[in-house]
Amino acid sequence: MSFAKLSASIAKRGSNLCIGLDPAVEKIPPFLSRHEDPVLEFNSRIIEATSDVACAYKLNTAFYEILGERGWRTFRETLALIPEDTYVIADCKRSDVGNSAKQYAETFFGYFGVDSATVNPYMGYDSLEPFLGFKGKDIYALAVTSNKGANDFQLIDVGGKKLYELVLEKLSQWNTAGNIGAVVGATQGEYLARIRTEYPRIPLLIPGIGAQGGSVEDVARAIAAEGAPVLVNVSRDVIFAGNGEDFAAGAREKALYYKTLLKG
Amino acid sequence: MSFAKLSASIAKRGSNLCIGLDPAVEKIPPFLSRHEDPVLEFNSRIIEATSDVACAYKLNTAFYEILGERGWRTFRETLALIPEDTYVIADCKRSDVGNSAKQYAETFFGYFGVDSATVNPYMGYDSLEPFLGFKGKDIYALAVTSNKGANDFQLIDVGGKKLYELVLEKLSQWNTAGNIGAVVGATQGEYLARIRTEYPRIPLLIPGIGAQGGSVEDVARAIAAEGAPVLVNVSRDVIFAGNGEDFAAGAREKALYYKTLLKG
Repeated sequence: MSFAKLSASIAKRGSNLCIGLDPAVEKIPPFLSRHEDPVLEFNSRIIEATSDVACAYKLNTAFYEILGERGWRTFRETLALIPEDTYVIADCKRSDVGNSAKQYAETFFGYFGVDSATVNPYMGYDSLEPFLGFKGKDIYALAVTSNKGANDFQLIDVGGKKLYELVLEKLSQWNTAGNIGAVVGATQGEYLARIRTEYPRIPLLIPGIGAQGGSVEDVARAIAAEGAPVLVNVSRDVIFAGNGEDFAAGAREKALYYKTLLKG
Repeated sequence: MSFAKLSASIAKRGSNLCIGLDPAVEKIPPFLSRHEDPVLEFNSRIIEATSDVACAYKLNTAFYEILGERGWRTFRETLALIPEDTYVIADCKRSDVGNSAKQYAETFFGYFGVDSATVNPYMGYDSLEPFLGFKGKDIYALAVTSNKGANDFQLIDVGGKKLYELVLEKLSQWNTAGNIGAVVGATQGEYLARIRTEYPRIPLLIPGIGAQGGSVEDVARAIAAEGAPVLVNVSRDVIFAGNGEDFAAGAREKALYYKTLLKG
């Protein structure tokens, strides 16, 4: 069953918290610079300190790509440090025509072996299809994102509903194997509640609490409602909780804080 | 001026042809396997044989990412082989919230130093903004793509117009620095003609002729019309024209064929 690994990880840890491993180089504790790969060392310590609290880790490829080929090595080596039973998302938001989408699916599900990847739905079904063919792998398609730009297209009216609603309708139709989830920003509280009620069977990945300012109460309500697994991602606010030698302990504390907060 | 480098390259070579360097490993001539990096050798020979015919090269990141960190080295080393006066597009179709979009913009325009990147507009203005701040760099945002999935969202009705038209309207509003172009698939002939007439000042990147079956006549008409520079991309049909020792000569022949054909 798809999303089964996620459900098991949530149950085991009693936690819906996903930690975003987005190691912006300029924010990494300076003392780590003595290590050969400070980013990897940073990720390693965060994972070690939080892996019993985080049911999932999400790696945004933007923060690795910027480091060139070395960044992709760090990406790969970070994945190897995550416990087997923890759910892993490549937050790559890829989108392309079938032939190229196939390469992306193979990259993340085959080469890197992550459990899930985020995708951008603008190019339609055949841009997602290659990802859906991987057994035991899931995708999260962007529905309503946490940024201001969500207003430009996602929230416009398309014949009596909003574009993101049409996206969710289509995702539901395409979800025959049960391996499609949706990204809904925590800053979109009004829509989040509606989506959870109308599409209870679509797993949600919710970024936007913490640094982006989304409401934890809205998110806790979404988690409490009956339905598919809900993942709440926090990145900066957890991983950069501290800046000294004890930064990992600070991250753990913040992770525990969010884990509890999400229980409502 | 933005897109100035592209206009100069088109004028110098008398060509609107962009060659897509999408080196799917399984299609590379087998004899190249004796080289340390067959993909780089392949790209090198294609560039050497076609750089007076192609006004631009487009590298789809999907075909490099699948090779892991080695693929990104090949990506970087390929860029170094392209003549200075040739326009270079990273076909990465990235999209993310501002903080992550900034990393992507820095990756492609800063670290890799390409002239242009493709982006997915679904997340709205602030997902494109970090790219727009780079002086002398351009973006191409997806409008109507060449795949069947274009029907799912891009071509739906949003209050008397199609979604892609709204995207173009917004792109026009945001295009204060003149560095925003649009991707319009050659398979979308009807829309291509309309876009060229209604948005003559938006530079177009047109994929979809060759392997994807778009009409060369439609595209030639778009080029001939007065307006911003038009780039037509062909990938597989040029780079995999041959499979033997003389594959680069075959690619050159195909490139010349398309260059002429695009003159209508």
